[in-house]
Parts: sequence; structure tokens; C-alpha cells
Amino acid sequence: MQLARVIGTIVSTVKNSGLISRKLLIIQSVDGKMRDTGKPLVAVDSVGAGVGELVFWCRGKEASFPFEGSDVPTDCTIVGIVDSEAHVKSLESKGA
Amino acid sequence: MQLARVIGTIVSTVKNSGLISRKLLIIQSVDGKMRDTGKPLVAVDSVGAGVGELVFWCRGKEASFPFEGSDVPTDCTIVGIVDSEAHVKSLESKGA
Amino acid sequence: MQLARVIGTIVSTVKNSGLISRKLLIIQSVDGKMRDTGKPLVAVDSVGAGVGELVFWCRGKEASFPFEGSDVPTDCTIVGIVDSEAHVKSLESKGA
Amino acid sequence: MQLARVIGTIVSTVKNSGLISRKLLIIQSVDGKMRDTGKPLVAVDSVGAGVGELVFWCRGKEASFPFEGSDVPTDCTIVGIVDSEAHVKSLESKGA
Amino acid sequence: MQLARVIGTIVSTVKNSGLISRKLLIIQSVDGKMRDTGKPLVAVDSVGAGVGELVFWCRGKEASFPFEGSDVPTDCTIVGIVDSEAHVKSLESKGA
Repeated sequence: MQLARVIGTIVSTVKNSGLISRKLLIIQSVDGKMRDTGKPLVAVDSVGAGVGELVFWCRGKEASFPFEGSDVPTDCTIVGIVDSEAHVKSLESKGA
Repeated sequence: MQLARVIGTIVSTVKNSGLISRKLLIIQSVDGKMRDTGKPLVAVDSVGAGVGELVFWCRGKEASFPFEGSDVPTDCTIVGIVDSEAHVKSLESKGA
Repeated sequence: MQLARVIGTIVSTVKNSGLISRKLLIIQSVDGKMRDTGKPLVAVDSVGAGVGELVFWCRGKEASFPFEGSDVPTDCTIVGIVDSEAHVKSLESKGA
Repeated sequence: MQLARVIGTIVSTVKNSGLISRKLLIIQSVDGKMRDTGKPLVAVDSVGAGVGELVFWCRGKEASFPFEGSDVPTDCTIVGIVDSEAHVKSLESKGA
Repeated sequence: MQLARVIGTIVSTVKNSGLISRKLLIIQSVDGKMRDTGKPLVAVDSVGAGVGELVFWCRGKEASFPFEGSDVPTDCTIVGIVDSEAHVKSLESKGA
């Protein structure tokens, strides 16, 4: 899974029926130093993440596992919130 | 899911039977500032998107979920249209 | 799906049984201006494409959908031939 | 599968139920010379890897195969520990 | 599928049970001119490839198709050996 920061929500009236009533967030992937990397993505939330939080997200078919019993067409799902951002940063500096 | 702009349609007479009568569009991925990024892709439309609209698309096997009951060989499906482009841009500038 | 040009065939005597009697082609991905991009790939053909044609190909598990009833280990399948190359180019120039 | 070094653990109180009681590690992909490449990833451990070890990890849906009978939403699972790091390095120098 | 050269084997005592008794090889992806590109990967062999041979490998879930009846957690499987390396090179030079 990749680390990312939630930077906002997205509003979409016309969308696939599998996405109706799902919370869509815009996330920005970050590297080990918490710097932005790559372009923002549209993610489906499965844990109740909020703007500003550091999360990790899952891609591929397994991104739809959290929504059991329904076929949610998502390749980007937030599956967890990181407790301590400082902890992740400290790993990076030791590794470098 | 990734953000992209619809830039045109594609015409293909000879194609896999799973794609027959599906609308094929050419999309251009964009970054948070709505600038082109990467090469254009051929996408199957599941929401009725039109040229010029800002959409988000899904890749992988889950890209075929919107077409229940049939095996559509697609790894790139448009699953939603973004209501407000200005909203996405404003997020980017705050995040940077 | 991505755009590519067929540049040749590949001969492989020793291959997985799921690929036996499948036509294997070498394709070169192209960008919107029809310039080569990235390295050549080995693709399974599902539509009867020939050398020199502009095609679009699908990756991931869904790349094996065209071969119903058999498990073809492919992550790169040609699913359609583009009718008009000039049309795709014209989209690119308008978008830029 | 890709080679990576385990650089730490991650703590996440709020996470998808499929990830509860799974060990989450932060890994850093390495190239053939054991140099860091790309950004750190969050991986689910299936073999009992520890910090500092050289491992190889699997992505995609098959990353959830080790957890039979349960749908673990992971696209990054550690599936093996490399016995000898020096052996991998020697291959690289011969190949270059 | 992508072209790669087999550059060595990998030894792993501690690995997921799905990988036990599978031959693990280290491969180096190559471009159309047979030059190294990207980092080495760990691949499961399904065809009996040996060090030095030019092969093509498959990623994603379909990489586990060759191992019917068992869930092998692999996203990188060698599915064929290329007969003639010179043939692939000649395509590249014509295409360039």
C-alpha cells in the first residue's frame, strides 16, 4: 500500500452506480519525507479518513474487498490511517 | 482513480467482441493543475461522458465491473464526471 | 487501453501451454503524436492485427477475457485496430 | 516480485477490518546494487520478516493469496526473505 | 508480456508456502536493443528457463494461471523463451 495525504473531497453527480453514496476523496501520494510525489488521485474511503490525515491506500481489484457483497469499481481505496507521522519520517532518515 | 479530460472518440471496426457497441473515448490524464500528463489512453465509457469533460477513470479488472454480466476486456473505464473543475484546482494550490 | 503499433512477430518454441497456438506479436506503445514511447512488449493477438497497424491493447487479468474458457497467462492483449491514425493525431494537436 | 528492505513498522489504529491483526511493515524497494529506489511502501507480512532484512514482495490481487479464506485488502505482501544479499549483488555486477 | 534476460537464481529458505518448491529466478528487463532497463525482479519459472536466456514474463493475477489448482502468490512469471534474440533486435532497428 502507498502513503498519501488526504487533500480534499470531490463532487460528482454523474457517476457509475457502484460508486453512489461512497465518499470520494482526493489524495496526494507522499514519499518517506512526506513530500508530494506524483499527481493527485481520486480514492474511495473505507475507514472514515478526513482532510489532512496521513493514510495508506490499496490499488487493484483488492481495493474493492472492503465493500463486500457489492462490485465497487475502484482501483484506489483508503484502507488505514497512520497514527504517527513523525514515526514514518524517522524511519526514512535512518534508512537514508 | 485518476483524473483525465476527454479529448475525442476513437473509431475501430475490427475489435474484440466484448467491446462491440461500447463507446470508446480518448482521454488525456491531467495533474492537479489540469495540465496534460502522460500519453492519451483509450477508455470505455460507463457514464455518458462527452468531449471536454473532466472525468475520473478506473483501471484493472475492476474497470469491467460497471458492465455486469458480460466480460468486457477493458483496463480503463470512465466511472464518473467531476462537477467542478475549479474545486479540484483550488485543492492543489492549497496543498502545494 | 493503450495505443501501440505492431512492429513484428515473436517466435517461441518453449512456452507455457496456455500460450500454445496463440499468435504473439511485438508491439511498440506510441503517444498521441504516434511517436515511440517505452520499450517493446510481447502481446497476444485477439483480433487478427498485422505488422504496421495501429492497435489498442488491454493489460491485467481482463486481458485474458477474449479467450473464454481457457486460462491464457497474458497481461497484454490486442483488443482492437484503430481505423484512422490521422484522426487520433488531430485530437492530440487540438488538445495541446 | 520485487526486492525490498524492511525499514520499520507502521502503527494504524483506524484501519479496514480485513487488516486487523495483520503485521504492517514499511519497506523500501532496492535495485540490484541494494540502493534505495522509489518511495517507501506499506506491506502486509506473511512470512515473519524483521527490520533490516532483504525480502521480496508481491503486488496485485495475488498479494492476498497467502491469507486464504479471508479477503485482505492488500496490494503489497512480503512473500519471502532472501538468504544471501551478497549473492544478489554479485549477479548485478556480472550483468552490468 | 515484457522481455527480460535471466541473470541468476535466488535462494530463500523462509517463504510463503505457495512458493515452496517453485524455481525462483532473478530477471533483468531489457528494451528492444537488449539493453538493461529498470531494476532486477524475482520471477517464478513455468517453462524451465536458464541463466542467460531471453524470456518474456507476465505480471498480475494471470501470472498464477500456469500453476493450476494452486494459489501461487506471484506477480511475475516467466511464460516463454524467445527463440531468436537477433530477430527481436532487427525489429527494433527497423522501427526506429
